[in-house]
Amino acid sequence: MIDQGLSGYSLPLSPSGRSSMLTPPPWHFSGDILMVDYRVNPEAAAAFLPPGLSPGSDPGAAAAVFAQWQWTSADGAELADPQRAQFGEFLLLLACEFRGEQLARCPYAWVDRSVPLVRGWLQGMPKQFGEIHQTRPASVGRAGPRISPGGRLAGSLSVLGRRVAEAAVTLRAEAAEPPRLHTVPLAHNRVIPPWLPDEKPVSELVASVVDGVEFSPVWSGDAELTLFDDLPADLADLRALAPISVGQGHYFSYAETLHGGRALES
Amino acid sequence: MIDQGLSGYSLPLSPSGRSSMLTPPPWHFSGDILMVDYRVNPEAAAAFLPPGLSPGSDPGAAAAVFAQWQWTSADGAELADPQRAQFGEFLLLLACEFRGEQLARCPYAWVDRSVPLVRGWLQGMPKQFGEIHQTRPASVGRAGPRISPGGRLAGSLSVLGRRVAEAAVTLRAEAAEPPRLHTVPLAHNRVIPPWLPDEKPVSELVASVVDGVEFSPVWSGDAELTLFDDLPADLADLRALAPISVGQGHYFSYAETLHGGRALES
Amino acid sequence: MIDQGLSGYSLPLSPSGRSSMLTPPPWHFSGDILMVDYRVNPEAAAAFLPPGLSPGSDPGAAAAVFAQWQWTSADGAELADPQRAQFGEFLLLLACEFRGEQLARCPYAWVDRSVPLVRGWLQGMPKQFGEIHQTRPASVGRAGPRISPGGRLAGSLSVLGRRVAEAAVTLRAEAAEPPRLHTVPLAHNRVIPPWLPDEKPVSELVASVVDGVEFSPVWSGDAELTLFDDLPADLADLRALAPISVGQGHYFSYAETLHGGRALES
Amino acid sequence: MIDQGLSGYSLPLSPSGRSSMLTPPPWHFSGDILMVDYRVNPEAAAAFLPPGLSPGSDPGAAAAVFAQWQWTSADGAELADPQRAQFGEFLLLLACEFRGEQLARCPYAWVDRSVPLVRGWLQGMPKQFGEIHQTRPASVGRAGPRISPGGRLAGSLSVLGRRVAEAAVTLRAEAAEPPRLHTVPLAHNRVIPPWLPDEKPVSELVASVVDGVEFSPVWSGDAELTLFDDLPADLADLRALAPISVGQGHYFSYAETLHGGRALES
Repeated sequence: MIDQGLSGYSLPLSPSGRSSMLTPPPWHFSGDILMVDYRVNPEAAAAFLPPGLSPGSDPGAAAAVFAQWQWTSADGAELADPQRAQFGEFLLLLACEFRGEQLARCPYAWVDRSVPLVRGWLQGMPKQFGEIHQTRPASVGRAGPRISPGGRLAGSLSVLGRRVAEAAVTLRAEAAEPPRLHTVPLAHNRVIPPWLPDEKPVSELVASVVDGVEFSPVWSGDAELTLFDDLPADLADLRALAPISVGQGHYFSYAETLHGGRALES
Repeated sequence: MIDQGLSGYSLPLSPSGRSSMLTPPPWHFSGDILMVDYRVNPEAAAAFLPPGLSPGSDPGAAAAVFAQWQWTSADGAELADPQRAQFGEFLLLLACEFRGEQLARCPYAWVDRSVPLVRGWLQGMPKQFGEIHQTRPASVGRAGPRISPGGRLAGSLSVLGRRVAEAAVTLRAEAAEPPRLHTVPLAHNRVIPPWLPDEKPVSELVASVVDGVEFSPVWSGDAELTLFDDLPADLADLRALAPISVGQGHYFSYAETLHGGRALES
Repeated sequence: MIDQGLSGYSLPLSPSGRSSMLTPPPWHFSGDILMVDYRVNPEAAAAFLPPGLSPGSDPGAAAAVFAQWQWTSADGAELADPQRAQFGEFLLLLACEFRGEQLARCPYAWVDRSVPLVRGWLQGMPKQFGEIHQTRPASVGRAGPRISPGGRLAGSLSVLGRRVAEAAVTLRAEAAEPPRLHTVPLAHNRVIPPWLPDEKPVSELVASVVDGVEFSPVWSGDAELTLFDDLPADLADLRALAPISVGQGHYFSYAETLHGGRALES
Repeated sequence: MIDQGLSGYSLPLSPSGRSSMLTPPPWHFSGDILMVDYRVNPEAAAAFLPPGLSPGSDPGAAAAVFAQWQWTSADGAELADPQRAQFGEFLLLLACEFRGEQLARCPYAWVDRSVPLVRGWLQGMPKQFGEIHQTRPASVGRAGPRISPGGRLAGSLSVLGRRVAEAAVTLRAEAAEPPRLHTVPLAHNRVIPPWLPDEKPVSELVASVVDGVEFSPVWSGDAELTLFDDLPADLADLRALAPISVGQGHYFSYAETLHGGRALES
């Protein structure tokens, strides 16, 4: 309860607190992931790291990640309504380090539902709204790839009616281990823009606290990745993170439970 | 080619014919199906059958079907862009018979993309536009059911911002065979509304011609099905098809190739 | 009534006929139009004309038209639910002639709702699905143009997550008369793709029958128009209709009642 | 600039700062408003007021407001892309008072674009995502009302595929002054949910700071308002704010410039 007679973990506050748009963590996630490892100009990547984070031992390592998620709160209630429980996501990851701890920085992310968008802002993850589509594997018929050698999966992101990114992966073999950038915590800046007179902007470096991580077998193969050039002005900086080379692609299912954040103290 | 210098299987016609919104059949489909067997008032069902079709040996047998599809033309090109290749569908089926052949009649169907909607009208399938959502099974984590006993999947249909139907299935065991109404051809009326002066309406009874049918193992279990009451006037007739009892639910993957239609001649 | 016990102007047929997705004409339309006159290569335009239509006296005259419509059936019922009554449209027009009658040919059109899309196919208008946005004039404040000199309005079309067309008009003065291509009937090909074995494609040249035409005062001015290059394969032919020069732009309100079609007999 | 080398008013931070999803205020708004005055149970309204706010001199006074907005930042850039500059909104208002100052409390609000949604949370306005539709007046034809006696305008809100609210207003006459609840500042709680261990929830009572207010002539008349009963659990508290009586409805254009907030200090 936030206030006498009016409560909620987030807005909207209401007498019972049940109107809160966000349920309090933990939040459980299960998803299907299409991921492409790639390399960016290391200086461009460094320019996207806040004070406190350094490029680490593999500067320029990056990844583009498409995901189709289901999520639910501790009580599982959202799963009864798939319209509420599902969302798509696309994000970029940059390898980085905090005092020797390997982390990943997410400079840009898009989702196609509002609850995960706002939940992202709470934790410092810069989620914006986009249209995200991703091939589903099939076990029968000719209108979907098998999870086996030669299976080909694609993903696309559009923002405000413009295609921003596309990726495709042709599966070759099961991998020995998950792609590294999907195994490290994410480092975010919780930003609270100033609103009142003389208010100072707040920007706090945090990492996500996650458990319950599960990976299905990971299939890897050849990959393609395009970040389009013809973008609106607010995405001009994104172009600096275009691939200078494209590595392996991966397809796997993944689960985690997100509990909150921890400060990365300087 | 339809006209000298202007061609296409469908509108839009263009010099190369490549602008046709519809590719010519065959069309391949692979999908995940959440289906609920139920029973309607046999008289209500009969009132939805056109001349030539009779209720057959199991009058009142009906089903509600949610599907998440991928489709592609003969050359597979659409699979490269999942935004183009995917759609969701919800439809009702009524058991019926034509001269001793077991068929299913689809009185109502909704899809969430325009190409399958128009393709439906070409073949006599009354597809309208709706929002369709369906649980995805998960192999990891707590935000999705397993395809195993106790796994629970749900589906929902909304039309013009109103919830029209919901279903849920709790899986119990693998079934010995697919649900019957998903194994018979569909009988449609190709309707061409009159547009020119003195033009007569056309209504032609046809059945779909399909091959390449594949079923994954079918899981069955307990089911719930709701058709909501508070609907706009154009859906008033739909209420007559509300369940008088609900039977088993099913979850399976399914594939077919649709080649065209055949006349059901009277 | 189409069949004993099952009726409707269009699919879906139902016992009362009320489930028909399309109401029978007449349909009333009131809309706000942002239009740009431009010129295309006359040979490219001619290649989009079917047999029976000729380029006429002004070959290469073309227009791009954004519209925000409300529509209703004869009884006005749809106006009670604005979600049902509104749609956006973008279309191209090419000047043409049939036996001396000035007409316009619409080679491509997009709408953002399914009922006008299917209604388009019934009359031979090649409507596809797109995202359409158009500036609204404002009478107060700084977030919208006035309908007066210097007022600037813009429109955009995206298809499957890609920007296809953009236009902008800066108003200069009230025009003496409406733009010509918005005053002539549209000539369409009603196309019925073949579905049954040995069925022949049908393509019938028709014109729209309209009355109740009203124009508000028309404001005209300088215009910009872009048809984007980076389009999917099915829109390759569209590029031939890109502007070779851009003329005046216009903004006005427009109404008509559409009653049906008439054959253009050869 | 928030951090050396990484800047932005909001997330996403980027080297140039241009990637910020939110531009800093001021933000200019111009919109068309369909508003219905109504009365709620005064105790129910009081239960939605946070400490510091009291019901004031007219307890139970409420309003339901549909709006179709255009917005732009100080430089006007967003107006060039109407897809970016437009959004729809539906909100409820409750009369209240802070130390004698008349204010309005917004317990629930929905918008149909993500930028105004996040901007709402920054200022303490509990915006969620909904589908919002509103009649547009017409100056020609039969598919839209005139702004004159007898003109009828409607609005609807759907959330996650369920109809939540509908309103309609039949215009009777021009009003002498704007509806009171649209003339007072809004009082919000800026809520920052806890994310780090031992973090306390923040909830700060603020009011919006606005200038440049303009009203077009206001038309008023008879009104209808429905808040639907069949809502998901998170909207259960909303039912307490259903109308016990419905007053006048209003249609007008409105503009304001939003500069930030001021603390309502207790």
